Amino acid sequence: MSKTAPFLADSHCKCRLSACGLTLDISRQRLTDSDWSTLLNLAQRKDVIGAQKRMMHGAVVNPTEGRQALHTSLRSHSSDSPFYAQVQSVLSKMRDFAKAIRSGQWRGASGKPITDVINIGIGGSEKGPHAVYHALRAVNPAIRVHFLSTVDGILLDRILGTVNPEQTLLIVSSKSFSTRETKVNAEAAIEWLKLSGIDTPQALAKHVVLATAKPEAYQEMGLPRDNQFDFWPWVGGRFSVWSAVGLPLVVALGPEVFDEFLAGAYEMDCHMLEAALSDNLPLTLALLSYWDMTQLSIRSHCLLPYDERLRELVPWLQQLEMESLGKSSGLDGCDIKGPTGQAVWGGNGNESQHSFYQWLRAGSVRSSMDLVWCAKSGHLHAHHHDVLTANARAQAEALIHRENESEHYFNAVSTIEIDELTPKTLGALMAMYEHKTTMLATLFGINAFDQPGVEYGKKLCREIEAKMRGE
Amino acid sequence: MSKTAPFLADSHCKCRLSACGLTLDISRQRLTDSDWSTLLNLAQRKDVIGAQKRMMHGAVVNPTEGRQALHTSLRSHSSDSPFYAQVQSVLSKMRDFAKAIRSGQWRGASGKPITDVINIGIGGSEKGPHAVYHALRAVNPAIRVHFLSTVDGILLDRILGTVNPEQTLLIVSSKSFSTRETKVNAEAAIEWLKLSGIDTPQALAKHVVLATAKPEAYQEMGLPRDNQFDFWPWVGGRFSVWSAVGLPLVVALGPEVFDEFLAGAYEMDCHMLEAALSDNLPLTLALLSYWDMTQLSIRSHCLLPYDERLRELVPWLQQLEMESLGKSSGLDGCDIKGPTGQAVWGGNGNESQHSFYQWLRAGSVRSSMDLVWCAKSGHLHAHHHDVLTANARAQAEALIHRENESEHYFNAVSTIEIDELTPKTLGALMAMYEHKTTMLATLFGINAFDQPGVEYGKKLCREIEAKMRGE
Repeated sequence: MSKTAPFLADSHCKCRLSACGLTLDISRQRLTDSDWSTLLNLAQRKDVIGAQKRMMHGAVVNPTEGRQALHTSLRSHSSDSPFYAQVQSVLSKMRDFAKAIRSGQWRGASGKPITDVINIGIGGSEKGPHAVYHALRAVNPAIRVHFLSTVDGILLDRILGTVNPEQTLLIVSSKSFSTRETKVNAEAAIEWLKLSGIDTPQALAKHVVLATAKPEAYQEMGLPRDNQFDFWPWVGGRFSVWSAVGLPLVVALGPEVFDEFLAGAYEMDCHMLEAALSDNLPLTLALLSYWDMTQLSIRSHCLLPYDERLRELVPWLQQLEMESLGKSSGLDGCDIKGPTGQAVWGGNGNESQHSFYQWLRAGSVRSSMDLVWCAKSGHLHAHHHDVLTANARAQAEALIHRENESEHYFNAVSTIEIDELTPKTLGALMAMYEHKTTMLATLFGINAFDQPGVEYGKKLCREIEAKMRGE
Repeated sequence: MSKTAPFLADSHCKCRLSACGLTLDISRQRLTDSDWSTLLNLAQRKDVIGAQKRMMHGAVVNPTEGRQALHTSLRSHSSDSPFYAQVQSVLSKMRDFAKAIRSGQWRGASGKPITDVINIGIGGSEKGPHAVYHALRAVNPAIRVHFLSTVDGILLDRILGTVNPEQTLLIVSSKSFSTRETKVNAEAAIEWLKLSGIDTPQALAKHVVLATAKPEAYQEMGLPRDNQFDFWPWVGGRFSVWSAVGLPLVVALGPEVFDEFLAGAYEMDCHMLEAALSDNLPLTLALLSYWDMTQLSIRSHCLLPYDERLRELVPWLQQLEMESLGKSSGLDGCDIKGPTGQAVWGGNGNESQHSFYQWLRAGSVRSSMDLVWCAKSGHLHAHHHDVLTANARAQAEALIHRENESEHYFNAVSTIEIDELTPKTLGALMAMYEHKTTMLATLFGINAFDQPGVEYGKKLCREIEAKMRGE
């Protein structure tokens, strides 16, 4: 490596890759054409695409929990994909339910139409729906979605205080149906319904539905079987937005929007399987993150969307990558000596220029980043869009020209231009990052689908609560 | 250092420090009592408190811009503090204006009371007010504040589409009054007022006010002198929430709340100046961050508030620390060889448990973190508060017991317990972090108050925009 790391554009001629309405530009990454070839060979040697295929065909890729990871089945248009019939059946039930609500056929117990959905869920049951709702919602949605996640009475009050119980639907979303935060929040929200007179099983059944992989959850809640929207143990929480966890999206944005969202993801799945390695968007992102982490010791990665609609994509990606790849033991159970997944953080790109870009350009740490923007805007303020995209393009360049650039401190930048943000391109974008994540797991040799590191905290919490209760 | 780094609690007996309604616990930091003494000696040798005093007395601590940094004057109760009279005069004007709006004496041009404030500002003109508003607002505020920051037509549409122009006040907030994003957004919002019939200078004067350090800004905008709330070149943007930049807070939360907020910060200023070094909250945070960065190579720091109200404190602190300390050249203009400020990121603590805590506990990077919670809740859901604080306490412990802890991978944790979140303790908390930041600048030998790294991006952006216009 020269004093400062080389740019890929200096030696490699094919730095722009396009698929599914997305164009990835890797010219500002810090490696040579020959490094890039080595990485492509590594992908071949580690059979990264083969591993993806095995995942999609139902191999038990999550051995610690003995599970498959078939989120790709949730959006597949191919009847050969595993669990195709079950998926279509639940999807169809979700569409019917959403249509009934949206048409006013399904009403609250007192006969009023539903105007507000409270999604009660945390982690994977919140981040995906939240990111998509924020991206695609109307200015004044006919049906608003609120996200009750943390077990904090302030958030509960702030949500319940702005909606009418008679017009509110609770969607309790939990894969295991044992998540403490979600159960406590669901109990409180149901109590609130009861206090407003929605207190019979029949009335509550108009206001509470479930998205869960626990077959008997509806019984626990005293609800009709029809009020439960199933998903399955083979859907990882952080990969679950395509499943019944997406129900608030189907209700609030409409079945057509959700179908397009799924179609965009499926298009990306096909691209990922079929494209040449050197044209493969998610593989490219995975190999560059692997390079940045293992060869350049770039420990943290910023996602910097230059689009208000993509603001909530940052916490979604943060969970996806960090919970999947934040591991130091391999699939074989042995410790991994080298580095694994990067920290992922970031923020609205334009706002971050006025916040932490100073640090990115002149601080004492190396960073990698993805700048994301849309070629076509989703509004009529042309001047705004010109200024915004000029900023994005200028910063892509400025961020690699560091103040005091040295072999110690430099940045690596990728840009992703979305032709136009639609449900379809959003689906493709999110599926691309999912594949990046699972491909990185193959490269590092880790299980992307468990989260053993969070169990100890849960155990300690139970002990502390018992102490607080004087046990 | 032993195989894994020691805990301060193992050798040091005074790990809990309290002041201003805050209790800091540093027992889970990774150093020995003797390291801690060395750090306290360093603080003495570098005269950290003396440097703070010089800053507060008006020394030109920002030499590249030839400026003082007197944010402490904005909240001082002592008439000896620099610019006391000017500060009191603007504060008094802010209070009067807020009272007029809140009482309905100041109305929109058509005679209706103001119900919505749009704060048009970015960076320091957004993050502080946003953090405080999110912390202290009512469930259904009589006056709502919206933050128009990024130059994105989507955000513009989403804000303008939910308010009534006849009842909306624009606060255009920019220190220099030359910030591109703010000017473009202000123009669009004023155009929107005009289209709704608020189109004479007299009418507009009821709907647009300015917070700026540019004396003639009001003339540029065709507004009466009274519509401008001044601050001064000696207020750094990221330290400006206490100034006229806080105007939306005075309007929406009330003068009494803002006064208490200032009083809490002043209390912290006094604590910082008067407390013994070993009892000094901000100094302790600064020395530990310095230790983590320079001795332990912990490059990133997470702020993890276990309180919905403190959610927006994360981006505020991120700008404060990263823009102030993200520098690689010293006050003398020479390159600094070692590390400087940490990356600061984070999120709602309870939600982050279900997101990136897996990475914090088992990933391949060292991290430091502050967990923050309130002893007393701000709501009536006692069970929620028990579960939330049990989680916070459990995680403070879990996060230092890493999976596969090794000399390579370990964490350092501080906890901050707030007795009860009030305007006063919030002011103290934010002032504490401000002092931490400027103290770190003294320790690193850098200028905390400029941001030279962002200029190049602005220049490039102007060039790209000129090209887009075909120049």
